Amino acid sequence: MLTIEPIGTIHSPIDTPENAPIQPRGAEGLQGEIEIFPRFSAGLADLEGFSHLYLIYHFHLAKRTSLEVTPFMDTSQRGVFATRSPLRPSHIGLSIVRLLGIRDNILTIQGIDTVDQTPLLDIKPYIENFDLVKESRSGWMQAGPEEVAARRSDDRFL
Amino acid sequence: MLTIEPIGTIHSPIDTPENAPIQPRGAEGLQGEIEIFPRFSAGLADLEGFSHLYLIYHFHLAKRTSLEVTPFMDTSQRGVFATRSPLRPSHIGLSIVRLLGIRDNILTIQGIDTVDQTPLLDIKPYIENFDLVKESRSGWMQAGPEEVAARRSDDRFL
Repeated sequence: MLTIEPIGTIHSPIDTPENAPIQPRGAEGLQGEIEIFPRFSAGLADLEGFSHLYLIYHFHLAKRTSLEVTPFMDTSQRGVFATRSPLRPSHIGLSIVRLLGIRDNILTIQGIDTVDQTPLLDIKPYIENFDLVKESRSGWMQAGPEEVAARRSDDRFL
Repeated sequence: MLTIEPIGTIHSPIDTPENAPIQPRGAEGLQGEIEIFPRFSAGLADLEGFSHLYLIYHFHLAKRTSLEVTPFMDTSQRGVFATRSPLRPSHIGLSIVRLLGIRDNILTIQGIDTVDQTPLLDIKPYIENFDLVKESRSGWMQAGPEEVAARRSDDRFL
């Protein structure tokens, strides 16, 4: 078992997990702030040179686990590891956001798709040389960007 | 605090954290296997349609935390959140690998950069519509793909 202490809190305009955007793709206009607890703020040095960040966070409102789920972007049941559903055993979420700026221990970000007050576990820089996948296959997920952007969450993962 | 139970174990040809490849970019030829514990294997349904996966794992050999580190690909100290160093407070690692196949609860993967016996916390599908960043800035990380591929780890994060 691994015990993880949050490094901060995500502040977002999304105040309920229902009717929320699906992934940062659906939240391109939404700005939020990340508050890093002051005892960790020395770890933010040099981060401002990166345009995009991975946020690793706790789906703190997901109170149960399910190995088969119907994703927001689909109508069929899928194995939970083939989805980004909060009901995964780890309850860990992953999103890529744009970093707009850092002031002391506060990051301003764009494209936030997490609910307000989400506990942040880690930040990693998006590094093109490590992370850019030039060609990929996305299985059941066939929706185009417009469809993702238009879709909103519901109560299925509560 | 969040307590996370591993969902499986990463089996890799890398048996020591020293002299290991830097990120999957440095490990493109390396194949490994992921063993998902049988009680979670129902969650693997539909995953085979995806060519790339995010692995979220525990840097289980990192016994300490440091907010300032000198990355393998650099000669200056950087804030740990501007790096992918194992010494981050969460001790959570993130890598993108190619999925070659799944048989029962065993995944065969390519581009593995984690040490053998790494505890796996989560698998998420790489979804081009969510994850592809077309233009990004990578801060201090200016090394090209060849330099990353040629570089090996040392003992600085032990």
